[in-house]
Amino acid sequence: MATIRQVTITPVAFRDPALLNRVGVHEPFALRSVIEVDCGDGVIGLGESYGDDAFLGLLRAVAPTLVGLDVFDLEIVARRVTAAVGPGTVTDNHGLTGTSSAAKTLRSVFSAFEVACLDAVGQLTGRPVVDLLGGRVREHVPFSAYLFYKWAGHPAAAPDEWGAALDADAIVRQAHRMISRYGFGSIKLKGGVLPPDEEFEAIQALAGAFPHHPLRWDPNAAWTVPTAIRIADKAAGILEYLEDPTAGIAGMAQVAREAPMPLATNMCVVGFEDIPEAVDARAIGVLLSDHHFWGGLRQTQYVAAVADTFDIGLSMHSNSHLGISLAAMVHVAASTPRLTYACDTHWPWKTEDVVAEPLEIVGGAVAVPRTPGLGVRLDRDALARLHQQYLTCGVRRRDDTGYMRRIRPDYRPGSW
Amino acid sequence: MATIRQVTITPVAFRDPALLNRVGVHEPFALRSVIEVDCGDGVIGLGESYGDDAFLGLLRAVAPTLVGLDVFDLEIVARRVTAAVGPGTVTDNHGLTGTSSAAKTLRSVFSAFEVACLDAVGQLTGRPVVDLLGGRVREHVPFSAYLFYKWAGHPAAAPDEWGAALDADAIVRQAHRMISRYGFGSIKLKGGVLPPDEEFEAIQALAGAFPHHPLRWDPNAAWTVPTAIRIADKAAGILEYLEDPTAGIAGMAQVAREAPMPLATNMCVVGFEDIPEAVDARAIGVLLSDHHFWGGLRQTQYVAAVADTFDIGLSMHSNSHLGISLAAMVHVAASTPRLTYACDTHWPWKTEDVVAEPLEIVGGAVAVPRTPGLGVRLDRDALARLHQQYLTCGVRRRDDTGYMRRIRPDYRPGSW
Repeated sequence: MATIRQVTITPVAFRDPALLNRVGVHEPFALRSVIEVDCGDGVIGLGESYGDDAFLGLLRAVAPTLVGLDVFDLEIVARRVTAAVGPGTVTDNHGLTGTSSAAKTLRSVFSAFEVACLDAVGQLTGRPVVDLLGGRVREHVPFSAYLFYKWAGHPAAAPDEWGAALDADAIVRQAHRMISRYGFGSIKLKGGVLPPDEEFEAIQALAGAFPHHPLRWDPNAAWTVPTAIRIADKAAGILEYLEDPTAGIAGMAQVAREAPMPLATNMCVVGFEDIPEAVDARAIGVLLSDHHFWGGLRQTQYVAAVADTFDIGLSMHSNSHLGISLAAMVHVAASTPRLTYACDTHWPWKTEDVVAEPLEIVGGAVAVPRTPGLGVRLDRDALARLHQQYLTCGVRRRDDTGYMRRIRPDYRPGSW
Repeated sequence: MATIRQVTITPVAFRDPALLNRVGVHEPFALRSVIEVDCGDGVIGLGESYGDDAFLGLLRAVAPTLVGLDVFDLEIVARRVTAAVGPGTVTDNHGLTGTSSAAKTLRSVFSAFEVACLDAVGQLTGRPVVDLLGGRVREHVPFSAYLFYKWAGHPAAAPDEWGAALDADAIVRQAHRMISRYGFGSIKLKGGVLPPDEEFEAIQALAGAFPHHPLRWDPNAAWTVPTAIRIADKAAGILEYLEDPTAGIAGMAQVAREAPMPLATNMCVVGFEDIPEAVDARAIGVLLSDHHFWGGLRQTQYVAAVADTFDIGLSMHSNSHLGISLAAMVHVAASTPRLTYACDTHWPWKTEDVVAEPLEIVGGAVAVPRTPGLGVRLDRDALARLHQQYLTCGVRRRDDTGYMRRIRPDYRPGSW
């Protein structure tokens, strides 16, 4: 038995550019939690998840209840999570990852610990996590360039290295810069910021500038059904998929019947309980999995199996994240036959990390580690620094709308 | 890396009583294959599957191609299986487990090796297989008493210890004997042998004799839709489920709309590709998984996840099997939250085994092993004896109908 000796939760804050989205703008600091599951003898499994206050409270409630458990026994870990979180608990999910629910909260909390336990098991057995998940289907996991409308910098702060991007030309410049640095082979534009026809100019410009890069566009459900149908028609032949053009399974199904490209979602199908209705309504062609809220790496394999069974494509959703989450995403993606699209990642927007030598995106992909566990280790100095930043930054829960309203009091989330 | 040094396939034959079913009668010997994946240093992973000639040929074609692989890397094992089996290969599945297909054949061949590899990985890591599958959801896996109409013995042979069972009284006696020996808490009657109203007398007698034992009845699709609807109505309030009353998803859906109990299947849904139609038609309430043809223990977890997503109950199918398969069934069932019914097993009908100290059914359930791997080891003498029996018994593929026709030349499979 490999016993869990101690579980540590460390909230961290890392600098985040002023990226615009459908509900506002990223604050100067993004929050994450770092989970350490210490099994003694230098074996410390790492996890990473949301860092909002309410979520941190749940992680901290669970942590001591895992001490003494066998780190292999994820079933008992799951039971302890359920017991500590309690029934009916719902944490905020910032409006960009669909409906919150008690089930989704439980899955999210479990996921943070599951990843850390699997990292520990990998270290204990001398195997990369992907091997614990059945072995690698691929040696490299492709990621997509993730373009954002953005300000040059946060108010009263110096511009960041990327500069402003508020029109098609600037978005194309951003794409060139990002692709030349990381070699991405596909492109995603976060939309829902400008009126759809203006954003479509950027999509057209990207298609012209990168004719061999598959394109995806995600307005985070900012459009009505008629708008979504009209824009989907305009974008025929240009997009590999259109992500969450409108809200809800019923609306997505209406759009899907007319749209010439598959519709993707990480908003209307966010848990297993959403799948039957979506399948029945033929609402989606692509599901964006996310181990952080689908219940961990194994559950992500399960959702991939469900998607495969119903001939639904699979991509991967991303929130702003650090190097532990990147590694977890890479391992589970490497084990998943049904990964029909490059994964999303906010990685290029990040300038600091808690990981000593993060995995690298080269040629648009991450080589799947062959070292034990997740294949990343903490930089303790960086962890202390980002924790200190957490303590002083003042942000305690993600609130893109509230931050935007402090800058533009009359701001309202986009809706067209 | 834990390298596969040698892979051995040993066909065995074990004595089998004259059990009647919808397509004939069990022959005096049942065939199985025993798979050994030798990783050196005494680590030998065990698998068990079908022993028919055609299937053995595939196992033997695959075996040498696995030498040199990392036993953890099931993905490469799967690719080697695919390469060795080749496209379009279909083996006979004896008519009692639904439609054969190339995909099902591939999954069946892979499963035999996957179980053996997982047993080896468990030994190498010092963990029971259930831990490799995410940990135990339960400490005991319940099994069901599996009653058969049967002859007293094979023609020209002495009666077996169970005696004949050709009417309701004898079936009830069989149930008493089996339950007193193994403590089963639920009962299955293999039907499709007598006209359904005659079999229903046995069901009624069982319900009277065992009022607290959930009952299931499996005529292996011997009934037309109208017969199935009529009999299901008669059996209202008596059965926990009715298994494969009629053939095909469309027919099952017609029956399901009228039947007062859930319908179960291991015949009309035998692969992931069958699930969408069955879900769409609301044809089944219970799916009988079987790792032998669903593609192994991990794929069985995947089918459980799909069933869970669509609120379909899960039970487990059994063919005549030995102690390696029992252990594999127990480990995967122990890891599966969605196991809503006791598993089927032919275990009580078996009088010999290749396993030294088989797991035991006590109180109707098997305690989930805590020892590394599957928790069973070969009895080399028994393996040699059952292999010798294979060589001399003359049976090379399961053919219940052919055997029956050698005894009763005018025999035709039941249809009502």
